[in-house]
Amino acid sequence: MIRAGIIGATGYAGNELVRLLMGHKEAEIKWYGSRSYVDQRYADVYRNMFQVVEDVCRDDNVAELASQVDVIFTATPQGFLAGVLTEEILGKAKVIDLSADFRIKDVSVYEKWYRIEHKSPQFLPEAVYGLCEVNREKIRGARLVANPGCYTTCSILTAYPLVKEGLIDPSTLIIDAKSGTSGAGRGAKLPNLYCEVNENIKAYGVATHRHTPEIEEQLGYAAGREITVSFTPHLVPMNRGILVTEYASLVRRPDGSLPGADELRAVYESYYKEETFVRVLDDGVCPETKWVEGSNYVDIGFTVDGRTGRVVMMGALDNLVKGAAGQAVQNMNLLFGCDEKEGLALAPMFP
Amino acid sequence: MIRAGIIGATGYAGNELVRLLMGHKEAEIKWYGSRSYVDQRYADVYRNMFQVVEDVCRDDNVAELASQVDVIFTATPQGFLAGVLTEEILGKAKVIDLSADFRIKDVSVYEKWYRIEHKSPQFLPEAVYGLCEVNREKIRGARLVANPGCYTTCSILTAYPLVKEGLIDPSTLIIDAKSGTSGAGRGAKLPNLYCEVNENIKAYGVATHRHTPEIEEQLGYAAGREITVSFTPHLVPMNRGILVTEYASLVRRPDGSLPGADELRAVYESYYKEETFVRVLDDGVCPETKWVEGSNYVDIGFTVDGRTGRVVMMGALDNLVKGAAGQAVQNMNLLFGCDEKEGLALAPMFP
Amino acid sequence: MIRAGIIGATGYAGNELVRLLMGHKEAEIKWYGSRSYVDQRYADVYRNMFQVVEDVCRDDNVAELASQVDVIFTATPQGFLAGVLTEEILGKAKVIDLSADFRIKDVSVYEKWYRIEHKSPQFLPEAVYGLCEVNREKIRGARLVANPGCYTTCSILTAYPLVKEGLIDPSTLIIDAKSGTSGAGRGAKLPNLYCEVNENIKAYGVATHRHTPEIEEQLGYAAGREITVSFTPHLVPMNRGILVTEYASLVRRPDGSLPGADELRAVYESYYKEETFVRVLDDGVCPETKWVEGSNYVDIGFTVDGRTGRVVMMGALDNLVKGAAGQAVQNMNLLFGCDEKEGLALAPMFP
Amino acid sequence: MIRAGIIGATGYAGNELVRLLMGHKEAEIKWYGSRSYVDQRYADVYRNMFQVVEDVCRDDNVAELASQVDVIFTATPQGFLAGVLTEEILGKAKVIDLSADFRIKDVSVYEKWYRIEHKSPQFLPEAVYGLCEVNREKIRGARLVANPGCYTTCSILTAYPLVKEGLIDPSTLIIDAKSGTSGAGRGAKLPNLYCEVNENIKAYGVATHRHTPEIEEQLGYAAGREITVSFTPHLVPMNRGILVTEYASLVRRPDGSLPGADELRAVYESYYKEETFVRVLDDGVCPETKWVEGSNYVDIGFTVDGRTGRVVMMGALDNLVKGAAGQAVQNMNLLFGCDEKEGLALAPMFP
Repeated sequence: MIRAGIIGATGYAGNELVRLLMGHKEAEIKWYGSRSYVDQRYADVYRNMFQVVEDVCRDDNVAELASQVDVIFTATPQGFLAGVLTEEILGKAKVIDLSADFRIKDVSVYEKWYRIEHKSPQFLPEAVYGLCEVNREKIRGARLVANPGCYTTCSILTAYPLVKEGLIDPSTLIIDAKSGTSGAGRGAKLPNLYCEVNENIKAYGVATHRHTPEIEEQLGYAAGREITVSFTPHLVPMNRGILVTEYASLVRRPDGSLPGADELRAVYESYYKEETFVRVLDDGVCPETKWVEGSNYVDIGFTVDGRTGRVVMMGALDNLVKGAAGQAVQNMNLLFGCDEKEGLALAPMFP
Repeated sequence: MIRAGIIGATGYAGNELVRLLMGHKEAEIKWYGSRSYVDQRYADVYRNMFQVVEDVCRDDNVAELASQVDVIFTATPQGFLAGVLTEEILGKAKVIDLSADFRIKDVSVYEKWYRIEHKSPQFLPEAVYGLCEVNREKIRGARLVANPGCYTTCSILTAYPLVKEGLIDPSTLIIDAKSGTSGAGRGAKLPNLYCEVNENIKAYGVATHRHTPEIEEQLGYAAGREITVSFTPHLVPMNRGILVTEYASLVRRPDGSLPGADELRAVYESYYKEETFVRVLDDGVCPETKWVEGSNYVDIGFTVDGRTGRVVMMGALDNLVKGAAGQAVQNMNLLFGCDEKEGLALAPMFP
Repeated sequence: MIRAGIIGATGYAGNELVRLLMGHKEAEIKWYGSRSYVDQRYADVYRNMFQVVEDVCRDDNVAELASQVDVIFTATPQGFLAGVLTEEILGKAKVIDLSADFRIKDVSVYEKWYRIEHKSPQFLPEAVYGLCEVNREKIRGARLVANPGCYTTCSILTAYPLVKEGLIDPSTLIIDAKSGTSGAGRGAKLPNLYCEVNENIKAYGVATHRHTPEIEEQLGYAAGREITVSFTPHLVPMNRGILVTEYASLVRRPDGSLPGADELRAVYESYYKEETFVRVLDDGVCPETKWVEGSNYVDIGFTVDGRTGRVVMMGALDNLVKGAAGQAVQNMNLLFGCDEKEGLALAPMFP
Repeated sequence: MIRAGIIGATGYAGNELVRLLMGHKEAEIKWYGSRSYVDQRYADVYRNMFQVVEDVCRDDNVAELASQVDVIFTATPQGFLAGVLTEEILGKAKVIDLSADFRIKDVSVYEKWYRIEHKSPQFLPEAVYGLCEVNREKIRGARLVANPGCYTTCSILTAYPLVKEGLIDPSTLIIDAKSGTSGAGRGAKLPNLYCEVNENIKAYGVATHRHTPEIEEQLGYAAGREITVSFTPHLVPMNRGILVTEYASLVRRPDGSLPGADELRAVYESYYKEETFVRVLDDGVCPETKWVEGSNYVDIGFTVDGRTGRVVMMGALDNLVKGAAGQAVQNMNLLFGCDEKEGLALAPMFP
């Protein structure tokens, strides 16, 4: 059995990790770390786990935890892991970090967008960006995995094949993203109150959202050059789910014609046909967040618009699963040589 | 492997059966029966099942289905199964009926509340009411299981121990029930439109709802006499979940004092301590539908009100799981000697 | 013009008062009092009021406010007004209190349920309970009006005629109430977060909710004797609206027969036919909160259940209008001799 | 008094017209036309109007209606008005059409996007596109007003000043729009069921939505040339509200620099400072649909993104008010010389 510890087990992503690991045949949770609920019964914090989890919350001492488990998940605020990570910890346990601390290779970019100092840039070079479908082999051998952001996972996987194959001009890429409210976390803040979110939709963090440089870095690798994208997140009155709608100009063929839908489909298929967790939808079908709820799937669709010469790419995932805890488990499976689907073979729940 | 067929696979309860059976190690679905979608790909009707279910919908021919499977689930309108059931069918396959056709022993009561003629009353005596926690042993040997209604399961389990032990006066029992909208089915009807349900709550079927006689019959068995209850369902703007709030006068002790909370707790514990799917909550904790979503749990809480001499009992379940498909799988497990929890060991999803 | 001041203008009820007074021809708001937002632009706190309200928030100094306005609305936490009210204030301005401080005549009952000391019980005798349909004449001459609670208004008006006319036995009265989330206020508390409330329903404050003694006192006046009721509130995933479902045993006629629906209807009509804001629905129609949203209406329906000998009474209102700010404006209209409907002639908004 | 008739009074937009006209001092409704509910009491179809509207629904005979009223509102399916409109009707009554029949000047464009034949193209030249803020003077003298679409109103007003002043390149304009569900109407269709919409978001009509040519035509007038835009609507789980997020490349100054936020703000102010119903929000404030709910406001915000050289423009309105019935009343006010705000001076309702 893989012994797992969770720091930040009482956030929404932490609770989702617990849910998924409960159904994982080769892992068991040894440490429910929390800052706010130390010594409280975990099931009193999340009553869905009543009679499922009997443990009491422990603190967030990563160093101590490292000597008791094989893998540590950190679902913690930005800066936490960078502030405590040591060579000794990495020598004892694998670390899968759900925060942004080790996602961005360029420390100055991180510090500019997150406005905090990075306390352990020495681990950045070895950290592997844990987007499984893209970096699978690198992940297997890693000690430190930077689990991608929720918006980022959806945004990248939706555009990746077309960027990589040069079918779209990445400088024209515009990502309009919509997220359920669990992405905002369980903190008691006025903007997240029921009456403020319900019957409402708004954009936020326009031109400044922190997932932007992460998307740009990863899609830049695919493009083979630095790129700049427009990324606008929106808050939607639902618990779970991210939908991205991405616009980009198609690169015309030498004869001036546009690549057709069949050509784009063939590219998507070549990248994702073997991927269990990426479903390229049939022609004319638009993804819906409800169809992936509770599962680790990303659903992708696209429409070629001959009038404008653009393609509209759409992707949907559950922000707490493939956008956080599910991908973290997928990374754990890769790290420990388990079946990549173990603990993740859940059909989406509808309605 | 248990070969299963579903008639009514394209309703919400049918789809939930598919979701649960996909995770069941000893069962496989051989027939996705539907009236409206024959010959269409199941995953085109429920896109959550894209790349999960490859089958095409078949018709609702129960007789033919019986010769191909070990168990038939009927998630069909009232009257359908009673209209087609035969001895031959029951000789070939077990039948678990999610409709009301075989729940009520007295055919005249059925016909009065449902306003349809019962076409095969000859099977009523052998039908077993599939409330697993109450009728476990009878279910094991049955050919025909009448899977309880969603409101009914919640209403009965919440009050059963106190009625059975004579701690409350069943003639004072008032059940105020609240349900999510999936209980109304997937039919395209104006009252079920998003804009009619959202930001709204209403009672319906006041004093006439069809689950009333089912509750009265089963709690009457517990009381040892016929009882009459007030049952009022309400439609709540959420997808899943039933909450019942039940009021009854406590039976005073010979010395005129009221039984205390400890006494009631002891009774609840004695009935449910060994039951995996019934969770008696801690003192002062009220059940919430969100804590059981996606799972087969029923959560039960209660408060003794010394001022009024009443107890307020509360129960919560997911109407599509323990209130329909989950209980049906639990019944299948009993019928075929599987572990009762097989396919149902899902932690509730939150949020 | 009536000059009005609001203490607690930045709560949800306060904002609703602002909305309604903006449409009132004979009133103008002179003071937007707030504890948390002093010196901030009101429209920055409630952006719906951008370019509608230009004022800046002021503090909650009631004494100073009293010399500047004709009427003071206090939409403040329990205990606030009782802590600051003086004879001098009441000599200068009328006070309409949306808190519970002056609703309950018996100070020991108040202190027991609210668990705070009452700082100015000397004003209790003169305070008028501002349920307009019941106490209209007394309100006209008052200096201090105790605006009823949201649950209370709905609970009382729904049962009042039948209690007053002795058609039901008030000792059997059970009130199962459901409320939208705005009733919980705008405080940033975890249980009110979107993800905690959405897709969820729960009871709370079972047997201990503070509106209970208020209901008992007022319906006790109607019954002509002290009564005790069961009252259970529930939190529903919607912004606005309260629905009450009330159960009581009908008092049989001398010949043992039950009073009929016609008899009950005649009683309701005799009390409410002339009341603009109480709508007694047609036979068989159940009230829905959506039908009164944004308006000052209370919709009432009922069903006689011959099987159980009970009547099920149902009432619906908008908790922020008739349950708070709308009734406060109605009280103001009575205090100042305006048309009782002024500022309140808004048709409900659907959907 | 202006005598008004409504054809399609039993749709959501029709009901909103009724709500608004109930509060209009100079208009009264003489005809509640309906196809499905002829001879039924209007208040039985929309119970919010119980005791507010006593009338019975009539049919959709526009010719007969024309001789009884001063203005006809048609909130009808595409093609209906074009199929029945005559010179005689227009000679008797003003017509404000909430359908698309007379919005698009080029009949071939209409027929291509709507896939129906236009039955009375002879009236297209005189029809005035009823976007009040743009065409105010033309509207005053019109007989036939084509009330703009909901998405269209929001999309155009949000971008209009920047297009008109040449600050953005209209060929780069991408409109990502999000709508509440009332925009889909009250038809009983499966995709509009509560359980299909709730907890879900999706794009639809990608590259084919019928509001596209309407936006292109009107913004083309502003640009002074034909333009092509990307327009993608999304369905959001809420009753009311449209939010548009629009992306366009800023036109660089001769010196290669980008125009600044101040410059854009000055342009917006010059167009909308005197407009009651358009609110240009403060710097850094993003519009939210909840802040305009129930009102005739359009809220507009924008962010200059120096990194990408684009501006992100955002607009929000209530699709049933400024996006349909409110704008129709505004048009009526212009046609009949009333105060343009009459019946529309409603502060938004929050929450």
